[in-house]
Amino acid sequence: MSGRLSVIGLGPGDARWLTPEAQAGLAEADALFGYGPYLDRVAVRAGQTRHPSDNREEIARAGAALTAAAAGARVALVTAGDPGVFAMAAAVCEAIEQGPPAWRAIDLAIIPGVTAMLAVAARAGAPLGHDFCALSLSDNLKPWETIERRLDAAAGAGFVLALYNPLSRARPWQLGQAFARLRTHLPDATPVVFGRAVGRDDERVRITTLAEAATEAADMATLIIVGSAATRVVARPGRTPLVYTPRAAERPA
Amino acid sequence: MSGRLSVIGLGPGDARWLTPEAQAGLAEADALFGYGPYLDRVAVRAGQTRHPSDNREEIARAGAALTAAAAGARVALVTAGDPGVFAMAAAVCEAIEQGPPAWRAIDLAIIPGVTAMLAVAARAGAPLGHDFCALSLSDNLKPWETIERRLDAAAGAGFVLALYNPLSRARPWQLGQAFARLRTHLPDATPVVFGRAVGRDDERVRITTLAEAATEAADMATLIIVGSAATRVVARPGRTPLVYTPRAAERPA
Repeated sequence: MSGRLSVIGLGPGDARWLTPEAQAGLAEADALFGYGPYLDRVAVRAGQTRHPSDNREEIARAGAALTAAAAGARVALVTAGDPGVFAMAAAVCEAIEQGPPAWRAIDLAIIPGVTAMLAVAARAGAPLGHDFCALSLSDNLKPWETIERRLDAAAGAGFVLALYNPLSRARPWQLGQAFARLRTHLPDATPVVFGRAVGRDDERVRITTLAEAATEAADMATLIIVGSAATRVVARPGRTPLVYTPRAAERPA
Repeated sequence: MSGRLSVIGLGPGDARWLTPEAQAGLAEADALFGYGPYLDRVAVRAGQTRHPSDNREEIARAGAALTAAAAGARVALVTAGDPGVFAMAAAVCEAIEQGPPAWRAIDLAIIPGVTAMLAVAARAGAPLGHDFCALSLSDNLKPWETIERRLDAAAGAGFVLALYNPLSRARPWQLGQAFARLRTHLPDATPVVFGRAVGRDDERVRITTLAEAATEAADMATLIIVGSAATRVVARPGRTPLVYTPRAAERPA
């Protein structure tokens, strides 16, 4: 008997970003799995079991959800943002590849969501309006040299950068080093957006320049967008400025 | 008197991906603007005016929506996917920068949505599970040489690539040239996902390799994901294979 596993993106904090498909997936589940703080965002329903887990236990969490689904349950594994972007979908695929053959028979659905960079970009204007990269600054799962090579390649080729996982208590210096690296490729005036806890009550969006960007403005809940040389800032009297990257690579004279 | 302009992402075709915030923005509008086929996806409500426009008229469409908002209307400008990713948000910012000062006083809200690459990735597994780039293959607004430089930089540095606007009747050769370019960086077996019209009745998702990838599999409604050298395919008896990029850059031995 094989059940179903839905890997569900809740979007960033605001419930108005939870899609109807994600709502339906949560409602029909027998069992909910997820990192505790994300699971806390899901309303309690009678008859559903809840299985919160700690952070940085992705493979174990995926395995527990797959085990429950293989036993016949309808399981929802929740993630913030989109499950496919630095979240649980890859861990589930990895667990399936390495796990028992029965896990390949599970009815698996990945339910997309609004990922953090889209929400932060929306608050700032349209900084991702041209070609861009999404890069995790965490060197827990890749060498720091790989991250630097990707910063060089992306900034050097004119991509805007969305930086996920910019820093944590265990990774205090990486963001500063990334900014220093990006300053060798980009003008001092390049716009930088710090989007913290977007969609939550404690949301804070700050716009600065690459020259002024300080690691103190970021924490684990922050997503950072670093513009390209083409990214522009439009002042608005009495309103926050707009940051956008023009659709055309070279602006007409 | 200044109204409000909401730039609303409808997500890909499936209405179950339309967020509650987007639904509310559509419901409260006096006037709806957008590319005709996108506007056709929005239910007709009494008391709302509708202003469809042709494709490739982004700045004129943004200007018309801003003009209506500046005159006091609550305006919704709809886009497919997310407004900030190769869509209307950048055109609106550009129009505001170049337009009359009154446009800077408009209450502007960008309402994020599920962008196509997230929906296609969800259908395939987790191909965007590690660092990735989003790149438009349209050379209408940038030189082809810039696109080739970005393909080289992204593939050479190990990013997965999401290719928007892969081809059209007016741009028939660009995708083939992009595949040829990527073959100089990536193994023949690199997984490639063609996601066409995802979320619509005529959805079609195909998984192939970079060696086998053919431009005939794509059209204007297709989003293509090209893996990195690390991207893997997991066979599932009786089910479509899973394509995923491991969270770790180098897999443990």
